[in-house]
Amino acid sequence: MNHITLKKIDESNFIDCFNLKLAAGQEQYVSNPIRSLAQAYVYYNQCVPFGIYAADKMVGYVMVLYDYDEEVYNIWHMMIDCAFQGNGYGKSALLEVLKYITSKPFGNSKTVLMTCNPQNEVAYKLYRQIGFTETGNSDEDEVELGITL
Amino acid sequence: MNHITLKKIDESNFIDCFNLKLAAGQEQYVSNPIRSLAQAYVYYNQCVPFGIYAADKMVGYVMVLYDYDEEVYNIWHMMIDCAFQGNGYGKSALLEVLKYITSKPFGNSKTVLMTCNPQNEVAYKLYRQIGFTETGNSDEDEVELGITL
Repeated sequence: MNHITLKKIDESNFIDCFNLKLAAGQEQYVSNPIRSLAQAYVYYNQCVPFGIYAADKMVGYVMVLYDYDEEVYNIWHMMIDCAFQGNGYGKSALLEVLKYITSKPFGNSKTVLMTCNPQNEVAYKLYRQIGFTETGNSDEDEVELGITL
Repeated sequence: MNHITLKKIDESNFIDCFNLKLAAGQEQYVSNPIRSLAQAYVYYNQCVPFGIYAADKMVGYVMVLYDYDEEVYNIWHMMIDCAFQGNGYGKSALLEVLKYITSKPFGNSKTVLMTCNPQNEVAYKLYRQIGFTETGNSDEDEVELGITL
């Protein structure tokens, strides 16, 4: 397993985050990290955006958001930079994210939701492999996946 | 004078902000509002991003940031959507911003700084007209302008 760490986005590392790049064709499936951080401003009190690090290098991005109305955790906008894909970083990062959520940084919910376009095959397969299953909800092209921790 | 109001960006209006568009050729001079909001996440405790409104319509964007090290106010990333330029909204908005700063929302400084590329002629002329003058500092293509309130 690759050693991956999550570090909160702050003044020291946001430029690295601005420079992360999706692979060609992935823009249609995942918001870029700049747009995601803009949403993090709006949802400041209920989310944490993270840089995904392999050693000292930021190789990706993910945001954890708590929905206080539904009392569930959400994983938003997870991506691995196009130059660092294919190394298993996505899987390691997702496990780190789930570990973080089990620390209950916001509410006490054990439910984690995310959405994914099934045509984004690599990501969809990864989420299923980790244990996420379809909740039965969907929104346009996105299928909702959930896991209980 | 056009009646312009400033409203903080929040959950209710950020999508309008995401949809603001710079005019062709202005992208080289001004960050787009999404990128600016991403910075607002990082500088959350020292800035306020605003939508610029003409009646109920968001026609532009501007961020006020307080630099606690230098003890000065900064105006960042002011823009009027390309569909609403040429109506004097920029001038009215800037006056509203200065009025807001005189309320000392952060520190007590009376100094307001911004940077502008002199080749962005309409904006540069506007800032001079309002009373901003060159401080003598510059950064790459940007000249620093300041006013004492």
